[in-house]
Amino acid sequence: MKKLEKITPLEENFAKWYTDVVKNGELIDYGPVKGTLIFKPNSYGIWENIQLQFNKILKAKGIKNVYLPLLIPESLMKAEFEHIEGFAPELATLTKVGSKNLSENIYLRPTSEVLFQKFFKAEIESYKDLPKIYNQWANVIRWEKTTNPFLRSTEFLWQEGHSSHESAIEARKFTREMLKTYCKFLRKFLAIPTIMGKKTPREKFSGAYSTYTLEAMMKDGKALQSGTTHYLAQNFSEAYDVNFKDSENKKQFVYQTSWGLSTRLIGAIIMTHGDNRGIIIPPFVAPCQIDILAFNPRRSAEIEKFVNQVEKILKKPFRVNVDRSDKTLGFKASQSEIQGVPLRIEIGPRDFENNQVTLVRRDTLEKQSVSINDIVKVSRETLQAIHNNLYEQAKIRLKNNIVEINDYEEFKQEIANHKFVISPLCCTTAEAEEEIQKETGATARCIPFDYQKPGENKCLICKCMTKRFVLFARAY
Amino acid sequence: MKKLEKITPLEENFAKWYTDVVKNGELIDYGPVKGTLIFKPNSYGIWENIQLQFNKILKAKGIKNVYLPLLIPESLMKAEFEHIEGFAPELATLTKVGSKNLSENIYLRPTSEVLFQKFFKAEIESYKDLPKIYNQWANVIRWEKTTNPFLRSTEFLWQEGHSSHESAIEARKFTREMLKTYCKFLRKFLAIPTIMGKKTPREKFSGAYSTYTLEAMMKDGKALQSGTTHYLAQNFSEAYDVNFKDSENKKQFVYQTSWGLSTRLIGAIIMTHGDNRGIIIPPFVAPCQIDILAFNPRRSAEIEKFVNQVEKILKKPFRVNVDRSDKTLGFKASQSEIQGVPLRIEIGPRDFENNQVTLVRRDTLEKQSVSINDIVKVSRETLQAIHNNLYEQAKIRLKNNIVEINDYEEFKQEIANHKFVISPLCCTTAEAEEEIQKETGATARCIPFDYQKPGENKCLICKCMTKRFVLFARAY
Repeated sequence: MKKLEKITPLEENFAKWYTDVVKNGELIDYGPVKGTLIFKPNSYGIWENIQLQFNKILKAKGIKNVYLPLLIPESLMKAEFEHIEGFAPELATLTKVGSKNLSENIYLRPTSEVLFQKFFKAEIESYKDLPKIYNQWANVIRWEKTTNPFLRSTEFLWQEGHSSHESAIEARKFTREMLKTYCKFLRKFLAIPTIMGKKTPREKFSGAYSTYTLEAMMKDGKALQSGTTHYLAQNFSEAYDVNFKDSENKKQFVYQTSWGLSTRLIGAIIMTHGDNRGIIIPPFVAPCQIDILAFNPRRSAEIEKFVNQVEKILKKPFRVNVDRSDKTLGFKASQSEIQGVPLRIEIGPRDFENNQVTLVRRDTLEKQSVSINDIVKVSRETLQAIHNNLYEQAKIRLKNNIVEINDYEEFKQEIANHKFVISPLCCTTAEAEEEIQKETGATARCIPFDYQKPGENKCLICKCMTKRFVLFARAY
Repeated sequence: MKKLEKITPLEENFAKWYTDVVKNGELIDYGPVKGTLIFKPNSYGIWENIQLQFNKILKAKGIKNVYLPLLIPESLMKAEFEHIEGFAPELATLTKVGSKNLSENIYLRPTSEVLFQKFFKAEIESYKDLPKIYNQWANVIRWEKTTNPFLRSTEFLWQEGHSSHESAIEARKFTREMLKTYCKFLRKFLAIPTIMGKKTPREKFSGAYSTYTLEAMMKDGKALQSGTTHYLAQNFSEAYDVNFKDSENKKQFVYQTSWGLSTRLIGAIIMTHGDNRGIIIPPFVAPCQIDILAFNPRRSAEIEKFVNQVEKILKKPFRVNVDRSDKTLGFKASQSEIQGVPLRIEIGPRDFENNQVTLVRRDTLEKQSVSINDIVKVSRETLQAIHNNLYEQAKIRLKNNIVEINDYEEFKQEIANHKFVISPLCCTTAEAEEEIQKETGATARCIPFDYQKPGENKCLICKCMTKRFVLFARAY
């Protein structure tokens, strides 16, 4: 066991706090290639629980998992122009096998739209085959200039869903349905509140007709794009000739969507819930929900028996871990805290005599003595209470740090104050956003669904009247 | 829905039968790069169930999942000489990102021993940290000259376990423990009997001290290596300086193992259980365990209600699928057969009137009328019976096709007869095996644990006396 290092307070240096927490929380080690990660059990376990829970949602929707290849030949990638143009600088390229040169360059998938075209083309003949909706869990490679664990990695893990529909209306509707599904998923399982909206043209996915996003607020006030859904229209289906015969036997191109959640969510968890003691993992995705920490269990057969009893009671309904080592209870507790275990049970010599244990919440650090007879019930309630509290805290923070601004000078000031700023902006071209980014560091996060109001307002930049409100923030 | 193509009888042309079955069974489509696959729900679902079940076994052993990077820098790969030498011709190599050349070539992992060294080095300080045992589920890339769906793919999916131990004895013991775990897993979940043994030096994993293997017999008599475990000794730990302080505070290198199962197992399932109607998926890993096929359910509200009732009863205890389309029952049945669903329920108009259904086994095609009240119980028993029958059939075939031969002329004949041949072979150098392969096409599959006998026999090749028996067969 490595010694724990000191964690930089988050108020002092948020970036350093993040790095300290990631390293000390037993989440990752760095891979040998820049920007690659070794996911340790404490972070991969979060991802496994995300997979488990999200797979249930997919199953309820009748969506099945598939797996498409990692490798994309250059010629296949090039058919959709905007897509290849957007991804070209980040594409990892195979040119050799052993000592032999390949006859054609091969890219590692940065996303799998073009591969799914090949698959859809083989699967779809008639309108009766539609809609076709698939999901895959995969690793993707994007060679980013600056990297940051979980947030921007050369390789990351994600789910990417892809669908083909008969009509634009149906595909658009499904794009929004998946966005709402993501929003609910983040709320229910990660305790992360998000703002749903549409990306401005400058920020949309390369190759999409329109992109929808979930924007979450990190503890430093920065935005983190935490999930996106794309309405692809017929951009890819035309380029790759994915067509079907409609009910009148006429050839049509399918309308498509794609949507993804990634291991970036682990970064979102850290920066939404973490504190100066380390990360706090939301109970429903925590690899270990309850840490059972015993005071020197090996010194006494009676304590050992009691610890075994507690473990036996809890290990069926919950994901538990027992630390039977001879370290001090204080050391065990701080290790549990730094690793973000939402609930811990401390068993000291007196607890055992009274047939009770001490429950300690990771979020509030509140302690509670609980009789062993009530332990399952109280643990379940407490885990739910922790989840609710994490969500409420994050929601209050989000609410308290969004401002509506019509004046550009005030806008600059609020951005400097680490706020989310909602402003009227009529300009749909990239220039105004570029200007704002250059001057303030903020980017257009989205056109939020829930902040559009009746009536018109003066555009932040050009002063003409507009109905369009855009959310700006500095972002990861 | 594509039309079903005719399946070539397996007695006529086994290779063509395999390709037909793979394609018609809704298992795969081909990827755009040679030797890559699109895993459709019917094959990826098998893999998901393998993951689910094997994860339970790992959990019971206290082994946690991690995820290490896909990318290995050339310099890191080169430290263990035999390992890089063995894999060099198959290594997919990144040399460029976008239009820029990389300063160092980067390989796509063909396996992750060298990456785990980096991880272990950071995790291990003292003997108290040992053993360290991790598993990962990942895609790996090996550029094979000839490819075959599932059996030999450029990209495949697998689990690879890696462990570091304090002593050689412990590591060796664990290598055998995992082999037995694999053997039991294949028997219990895939209904595949295997022969356990040790690889000859010529056939061992590049970089291993010794390799253990499970060899299964396919329906054409060829062997399929279906899982391997490797005792790595200190080959990698010395090369990568993975050391620990022992209880006397002396520096030691750890002793290691690695072990893997891959999507090749899907090929093993096809060629162990499949017949001229298509594949037969063993019930405990089947994506769909019970196909509910109704005769025109939409024509009658009463039948529809009955079908819904059957679905409701079965969908909790089993993985079920309902085909409510207006295709004929015969078409639905043959589609279900070709896709290998182990059990199907046919609901015709008369069944409904009698409040019963017809159960049809995929393996024996036996039909049975079952009252709706007994349907869960009978389905459960029948799925178990199907599993048992698949296993027994495969076991009988394996037993009936192994021969023990001491004479080389007979040996050649039996290999030509598609047998597994066990022969005394003293020669531990590669030459004798090379000669045998050149003359017969057979390779040394393993030195089987259960076929070593007391006393000495004349070596097949050099005629000196030996205790060592080697299993030979033509293999995939």
